[in-house]
This record gives sequence, C-alpha cells and structure tokens, in this order.
Amino acid sequence: MLPFNLTILGSSSATPTSDRNPTAQLLSHGEKLFLIDCGEGSQVSLRRMHIHFQRIKHIFISHLHGDHFYGLIGLISSMHLLGRTKPLHVYGPPMLKEILDQQLQASLTTLLYTLEFHPTQAATEEILFEDELISVSSFPMLHRIPTTGFIFREKPFERKIRKDVFALLNIPVHVISKIKAGEDYVAADGTVHPNLSITMESPLPRTYAFCSDTAYFEDIIPIVQGADLLYHETTFMNNREANAAEKFHSTTGQAATIAVKAAVKKLLIGHFSARYDDLQPLLDEARTVFPATDLAVDGCIFEI
Amino acid sequence: MLPFNLTILGSSSATPTSDRNPTAQLLSHGEKLFLIDCGEGSQVSLRRMHIHFQRIKHIFISHLHGDHFYGLIGLISSMHLLGRTKPLHVYGPPMLKEILDQQLQASLTTLLYTLEFHPTQAATEEILFEDELISVSSFPMLHRIPTTGFIFREKPFERKIRKDVFALLNIPVHVISKIKAGEDYVAADGTVHPNLSITMESPLPRTYAFCSDTAYFEDIIPIVQGADLLYHETTFMNNREANAAEKFHSTTGQAATIAVKAAVKKLLIGHFSARYDDLQPLLDEARTVFPATDLAVDGCIFEI
Repeated sequence: MLPFNLTILGSSSATPTSDRNPTAQLLSHGEKLFLIDCGEGSQVSLRRMHIHFQRIKHIFISHLHGDHFYGLIGLISSMHLLGRTKPLHVYGPPMLKEILDQQLQASLTTLLYTLEFHPTQAATEEILFEDELISVSSFPMLHRIPTTGFIFREKPFERKIRKDVFALLNIPVHVISKIKAGEDYVAADGTVHPNLSITMESPLPRTYAFCSDTAYFEDIIPIVQGADLLYHETTFMNNREANAAEKFHSTTGQAATIAVKAAVKKLLIGHFSARYDDLQPLLDEARTVFPATDLAVDGCIFEI
Repeated sequence: MLPFNLTILGSSSATPTSDRNPTAQLLSHGEKLFLIDCGEGSQVSLRRMHIHFQRIKHIFISHLHGDHFYGLIGLISSMHLLGRTKPLHVYGPPMLKEILDQQLQASLTTLLYTLEFHPTQAATEEILFEDELISVSSFPMLHRIPTTGFIFREKPFERKIRKDVFALLNIPVHVISKIKAGEDYVAADGTVHPNLSITMESPLPRTYAFCSDTAYFEDIIPIVQGADLLYHETTFMNNREANAAEKFHSTTGQAATIAVKAAVKKLLIGHFSARYDDLQPLLDEARTVFPATDLAVDGCIFEI
C-alpha cells in the first residue's frame, strides 16, 4: 500500500496564536502532495517541517475566510521566486482567482509556471481531480459563505493473483491484467479456474474526509460514511453550542456525533478557537461521544 | 526624552526562511506604535514578542511586492476579530486599498473599526502624518515598482527654562510658554533677561529613516542626511553588484556608502537574500565602509 499521511500545518480558527497557525493540512499519497487550505504562515510551516513545497501540485481552498487562504499568495509567490516551472493546480471559490490575479498584478509578477485555477461550487458534490490512484471531490458545508469540504478516495485496488496458483497453472503473462480485473482463467485444456480461486482481495481503498468550517450538518454523513479518517472542525466546546450555531461552526459533541453517525474509523478535531489554551478538555468531550478521536495539532502527522 | 525604539519583526527578502520573516518593523515613539511594512507572519511575530498590536494606529507600506505587505490583510482581520473599534490608518500605494477591499468583500467582512486609507505616491517627498511630537514623510526609492522610504522626524523640542533662574527671578507661570518658544523675559522692573541666559538647549530631535527596496540611489542622501538611525536594504553582498543593479536592490557596500555620504549616526542593514545563512560576512563588508553598522535581525530592538 502507498503511504497515505496527513500533516497538520495549522489548527487555529480565525486568528493565529503564538502556538497555532490558521488552517492548513498537507496530505501525502505516495509521491503526491496535496495542500488543503493555506492559512497565513503555511509556507514557513512547510519549511520548518522540511517539506519541499515545490512538490505540491494541487491546492484545495475550502472557502474565502482569511484563516483558510491568506497564506496562499505568499506560497504561490515563493514557488515562483524559487524557480518553479511545473504547473500548479488551485481549486477554490471563483473569487479566489481574482484575488490572486490582483496581487500578482500589483507586483507586476508574471509567474514562471502555469497556475491552473479550477473554480469550485458549494451546491453539490463534484469530482475535482482524479488519476489512476486517487480521486478528490468537493462537497457542500453549511457555513456563512460558500464553503466546501474535500474527500480524498483511493481508487479500488485490483485483485491480487495468488503467487502459488500463478506458478502452478503456468498462467501466461498476457492474461494477468484481465484476471486482476476479475475475469476467470480458462486454461489451454479448457478448464475454467474461477477468479475467486486464483486471486485474493487487495487492501480496501482508504478515504480521508476534510470538513472545515461548518455548522452541524447531517447532509455530509452519507458522503463521509465509513471514512478511514474524518477531520471535522470543532471551534467550540459543548457549552458554546449557541455561539457555534450563530457563527456556523461546530462543537466537539457535534463533530463526534457526525463521526458516530457516519461510522468513520477515526476522527480528528481542529480549528480551535483561540480562547482555548489547553485542548485536552475538547478532546475529552469528543471522546465521550466518539472514543477514536485525536487532536489535529500543528506539527502532528497521522497515518491513514 | 521619550523612548524611541525600533523592533525588527522581519529581515528576509522575497521569501521567508525558517529563521527570518519578510520585512516588517515596529517603531515605538512614546506611547505611539508605527508599523512599517507587514510581510506574511507579522501578526504572529508581534504576538510572540508580546506586543499588543491593537495599539498600532498607523501602518506604512513601502510598496506592493508581497514580502512587504502579504501579512497586512491578516493583521487587519485579526484586529477586527479581536474587537478593535479604534480607527486604523494605512498608508500605501493606491492599489493596496483595492487589494484589501477585495479580500474583505470575499469574506463578507465589514470591519468593526474605521480603516482610513491614505494613498502614497512615489514621485516626491510628502508628509503623511504629523502631530506635536513627530512627523512621518514618504520619499521616493529607486525600485522596479513605485516604492517609498519613510522618515520619522521628531519635532524640535522647546528650550528648557533653567530651574535655578526660574526660582531666582520668580518668573510668572503665564510667560513660561513664550520663554520656551524663544522670547526674552522682561521683569516687572523692566530688566530684560535674554532668552539664552535663562534657558538651555533641549536634546536634539531624533530621526529614523527607513529605506527599503532600492537600488543605489544618491537622491535619498539629502533626505536622510544626519539621521540618528538609517535602515537601508542590503539584499546582496558586494560580489553580486550586477545582480543587485538588475533587480533594483543594493549591496552592503552601497548601503554603507549612502550612510557615509549622508553622515548618519548609525546604519542598520536588512532585507537579506535567503541565500545567506550566515549574516556576519554582510556585516563585515558594510563595516569596512561604515563602522557603525548593525544587522536588522528578527527580534532585535534598537534604541534611537
């Protein structure tokens, strides 16, 4: 299986604190690096974690509140100043392109590389990117301005041919891809070897779902159903549920309830209000409802 | 004398490094805090240095290269989110206002405080702000895009009345302000006490000049003449003079030559290219020409 890891670059909501940057996450799948949101200071976090940011080819911005994208123009500029030539794909609300263009224009900058902008919409689920290994889709969140979550789904793996059978039956190389795709093997003498008897299951494809900045919103449950890892914002503790509703954010209990109802394997909580110095009480509250919860704290790495 | 100090928040050119933020400086004069340029991450630097950024009332942006202003929108947003109500004055190139407005509009933010924008021009010296204690002027730099330096000049102090004479002559209170302003004192019996015999000189007013992002440009010499502290960019060492000229930046030797020709009291060099890990060689080069030179390194505080 390919390594599939999530690195937290920022976990603060609204304003950065001395210890916590605004939202940004780096998702690595094999050789691919995906950046999810890009709060102010993300490029420095990437440097400090010795992540070579020129390897990032796809950046997904959930919405246009500043704590989710004010670091993007700086990262784009640094990629340019450091000599990038490979295209960069940015996915986000349409106005993001105008904001980037205007700032590049102000400095009379013509990027050395192609910035491919892909506008997102927050009305329906939509595939933004896919290749033979993974797909990335956006889906609607419930927030004050148009906001999307992102879900990263590994493609189903082909079945694996059992090595012992392969040698025993002397299966010719040219039929292997068909067998991996599920076909039976018909030997030269006409014997049919059912696919299930000569192959075994591959590992299940893995899924990471990112739910940033949303009120409690049950519509996301079928989308994130069964995810290996769900990140769900928890700006507030349970005693501020009214506050959360008013600002279209979620509490620890609400995030954990989504995790329970969607039967995910693991929950990460983040986007903590700057009022919380100690995050343990937030973790405790969430674990009461959904025990397999962790804190998405800056610098932590989670294997998916 | 009022405390008059400069705190370096960032000293890197173009891109931040792990150790150095892009340009930003905080100048404090008495109770007033002036922010000069605001590279990405400035608000976090201010927090880490325990500087209460709501006390900043005036922000001066030299030009629209990202390493000088990408942190401004984040700081403005945080001031809003943390409940600021006092007006904020921002001085910078006209397009900066559009850039700020567009980003506030994207997040549907209406600031809780008044942001007074004061457009600058890079053609002539111009007073941007003054009160009874200090004036701030912009002046042209020689760069790829319109760029200004800023000079902060204390107002001349009134003469001080000699306390011994004051008691001896029994000078009435109502004439004190006239005497401080330079008038002679005429006693009740008609005796004229010349101003110079009853007053003494106050300390000389102090000046801080900020010269960011400029090629070698002798036009600034008469403006910064005699400054107590001159900050002058030194993106490159002397062996990259051609590189500096091409990019409209300066070398250590050029900054130090300006300091010599302008007969300033002290020179600070900064805006270091990310290629320099060790800054001592830059300091050594500058000191060869102008011994009273220091490095404007992040976190340093200089008394003016």
